[in-house]
Amino acid sequence: MREEIIEKLNEVKAHITKIEELNKLSALAYWDMKISMPKKALEQRSNTLGYLAGEIFKLSTGKEVKGFLDYFMPKLDQLSQTNRAMIKKLKKEYDETKKIPEKTYKEYTIAKSLSEAAWEEAKEKNDFKIFEPHLEKMINFNVEFAKYYGYEENVYDALLNRYEEGMTVKKLDEIFGELKEGILDLLKYIEASNKNINRDFLHDKFKIKKQKKLSKYLLELIKFDGEAGILGETTHPFTLDLGNKDVRITTHYHEDDLLSNIFSIIHEGGHGLYEQHISDELIGTGLEHGASMGIHESQSRFYENIIGRSEEFLKIILPYIKKEFSGFKKVKLKEFYEAVNYVKPSLIRTEADELTYSLHIIIRYEIEKKLINKEIEVKDLPRIWNEKYMEYLGVKAKSDSEGILQDMHWSAGDFGYFPSYALGNIYAGQFLNQILKDNELAITELENGDLSYIDNWLKDKIHKYGARYTPEELIKNVTGEDISTKYFLRYLDDKYKKIYTPL
Amino acid sequence: MREEIIEKLNEVKAHITKIEELNKLSALAYWDMKISMPKKALEQRSNTLGYLAGEIFKLSTGKEVKGFLDYFMPKLDQLSQTNRAMIKKLKKEYDETKKIPEKTYKEYTIAKSLSEAAWEEAKEKNDFKIFEPHLEKMINFNVEFAKYYGYEENVYDALLNRYEEGMTVKKLDEIFGELKEGILDLLKYIEASNKNINRDFLHDKFKIKKQKKLSKYLLELIKFDGEAGILGETTHPFTLDLGNKDVRITTHYHEDDLLSNIFSIIHEGGHGLYEQHISDELIGTGLEHGASMGIHESQSRFYENIIGRSEEFLKIILPYIKKEFSGFKKVKLKEFYEAVNYVKPSLIRTEADELTYSLHIIIRYEIEKKLINKEIEVKDLPRIWNEKYMEYLGVKAKSDSEGILQDMHWSAGDFGYFPSYALGNIYAGQFLNQILKDNELAITELENGDLSYIDNWLKDKIHKYGARYTPEELIKNVTGEDISTKYFLRYLDDKYKKIYTPL
Ligand SMILES: [Zn+2]
Ligand SMILES: [Zn+2]
Repeated sequence: MREEIIEKLNEVKAHITKIEELNKLSALAYWDMKISMPKKALEQRSNTLGYLAGEIFKLSTGKEVKGFLDYFMPKLDQLSQTNRAMIKKLKKEYDETKKIPEKTYKEYTIAKSLSEAAWEEAKEKNDFKIFEPHLEKMINFNVEFAKYYGYEENVYDALLNRYEEGMTVKKLDEIFGELKEGILDLLKYIEASNKNINRDFLHDKFKIKKQKKLSKYLLELIKFDGEAGILGETTHPFTLDLGNKDVRITTHYHEDDLLSNIFSIIHEGGHGLYEQHISDELIGTGLEHGASMGIHESQSRFYENIIGRSEEFLKIILPYIKKEFSGFKKVKLKEFYEAVNYVKPSLIRTEADELTYSLHIIIRYEIEKKLINKEIEVKDLPRIWNEKYMEYLGVKAKSDSEGILQDMHWSAGDFGYFPSYALGNIYAGQFLNQILKDNELAITELENGDLSYIDNWLKDKIHKYGARYTPEELIKNVTGEDISTKYFLRYLDDKYKKIYTPL
Repeated sequence: MREEIIEKLNEVKAHITKIEELNKLSALAYWDMKISMPKKALEQRSNTLGYLAGEIFKLSTGKEVKGFLDYFMPKLDQLSQTNRAMIKKLKKEYDETKKIPEKTYKEYTIAKSLSEAAWEEAKEKNDFKIFEPHLEKMINFNVEFAKYYGYEENVYDALLNRYEEGMTVKKLDEIFGELKEGILDLLKYIEASNKNINRDFLHDKFKIKKQKKLSKYLLELIKFDGEAGILGETTHPFTLDLGNKDVRITTHYHEDDLLSNIFSIIHEGGHGLYEQHISDELIGTGLEHGASMGIHESQSRFYENIIGRSEEFLKIILPYIKKEFSGFKKVKLKEFYEAVNYVKPSLIRTEADELTYSLHIIIRYEIEKKLINKEIEVKDLPRIWNEKYMEYLGVKAKSDSEGILQDMHWSAGDFGYFPSYALGNIYAGQFLNQILKDNELAITELENGDLSYIDNWLKDKIHKYGARYTPEELIKNVTGEDISTKYFLRYLDDKYKKIYTPL
């Protein structure tokens, strides 16, 4: 019996390894498409990506996987923790893929590419009507999928669960309710403070060549392993994992904006460190990835905001920046710190400051939830969007392009994904609290220029486990608590009340 | 019946398309490994390449292919020319792969990687003994393979046939005999001429940045489509085809050598044009590649030598070079032309001039042929090599590293491949003759700076057909003759007797 299990485990790992090889190839083909591929190869590359998706689909839903699941599911308690997680993950993906009838999925794939194209056109022409019928379809597909996936309370739970296992509307309503209240209170405080923050030195010309040098410096500083990853350049920065020895991140360069590159590098670098630190032992288990979208985002946001926008970290990098960019010569650390943490409610999510960012997410969550529950209609979306932006952020979009049409997620049918970004902030706050419990000088001592403690802590507590734990298990293991907004809100409060001390 | 054939044709094309997708992915993974991949990913990437090779092997030798061949082989005369060529190519690859017992092939794969490593060590330590037993094994494997492949007269024919269908020792002995004689006669003439060629201006510093700009200029000039291909940088230049819309070439840059980059670009560009010009109609037939190694090399050498080293072409590029590199300011066209075509027998094949290059190949051919026929022994190779180099080229290697150990081909078991390089020269001479028959001003008018005529001629007569014809068929179709050394030798004679007019 024992021998039989070992043999079967080897078989299932060999099968997962094949799927992982195809996933890596798919990631590589995507990377190359964004970074190197010549223009005219687009159609051919789409065929290649389609071919790979089809092969991955076959391997993930075939008889072989069913055989493995039939064999292992009744024996889960005889398996090690890692092997148990491996089988559970295999099952989750099998179920998610297998439950959708092939015909429906094919229709969805076609509708999705039409929807993405329509969104692009609508955004360009600032005409929501062009996108409306497609968005309707994307919602209907997702409602149908949710029913196939199954759920206990809310139909939207089924979608949330794909990106954040165990997450529900019930929990999110509570968490996001607290978060919204806390942030809105702070915003009022900030507005009342009448504090003036100088950002003049940010409006300057910053040579791309020098920014590229800065990127390298930053990646080294945060301990991104340059021999196990590379940096590329794309309009929208992203991170791609081709295995823990080959992690690829991108950034963008704008000659009139230094901060955008800096914080893109640190953000994607945070994602990248997570992937690089995943234990070799997980290779071939399907667990050699992040635990969830929210946990992944917690790492990028921990680096970008909690570390990257801290006074201690800025103290490390300011001398370097002064040396390279003459406009910074007279900038004092406090000025730099305040400029970097300047709060101003705005229209575009991807350009939002640390504090108001989560409000953008909460607006999307509230809308998605109602859309999937058919409590609001697509045609009313521009109005609802604008009302919420006015209510929470006090800003009004001049056009739908910078309003309801600003994000591509819905056009691609990604419902349930947005909450990950705000969950990332919340988790990051909890991790910070725990780090400080373990070493109250962990952040203070950053100013010495050494990120080893943080790096090792995240690696040992979070990164190395990959997807071995669900987000719920992980946050409990690391902090002893369930998800809680307390620590992130406290962190925001401490930080921004100090910056925005009333005059 | 007709309908059945059409259906079966669709099936076989779908199958070939799968193989082509995997080939493209394999090419992409290789490209990325050479250009972008971080260092620590090497082991993982080797696994990926191994996985792909295994899948390609399965698809190329499986029951499905056997079924197609059983069905189509008796019906070849009912197929269109393209479909017939497609089935024949499928059969050639099936046979070549299938005839080797799997066990033997696996042993070979392992022996090969040991052999490659041993060669590298041997070359570095200048110790042929380290490589000797491995070379012995590579030869024995190839003799065994040749027997499995089958041949009519000479065991070496079976190996030649893999790279150049229809080629035999009998033909090559004749062709290479003529070539050797013609080149040796010319060499005597050149040596007797006592002509002095000034190459001083080639010894200078040429900024890499400017050389990179020059690469772009040259690729545009030869009409390489920058939207259907890219240029990379590697120590050893190569061309890789990911389909006719995605052709990748590389070059290398040496600050003290301008010509090396120029002629690498034009050489690989010639390979690249071939791939870019292959007709879309061949996609999915397995014929969307060059006709053979020799024909491919004829295109790169046609561009590199016949075009690239012509006075007319140099007249186009000299003003550009003068503008960019100050050391060229006073260089006259005639000086440039003579310096570029300077002949000097030397030790290293890859650095040889146009004239003596083929002698390097003939030496290798003569040795390979005898090795595979067991007429000479591996232990005697360094002596035989040095004797031949002394006899044909009048040069003596100071060490085996720059003698018998200089090329990696044999360490990788590639016997029968070397002749392609010289065949390329011979074919190129025949194509030149035909072009001039069609338009006697084709080369003369190059000096106007427009390569369209050449580009279109090669595309319409050769490139667009991909592998639809065997090399024998192609040369006959294009020139009305079989392979013949006459034209290449006449071209060499005309060119070099003019340059080396006796004083
Ligand atoms: Zn992120
Ligand atoms: Zn070549």
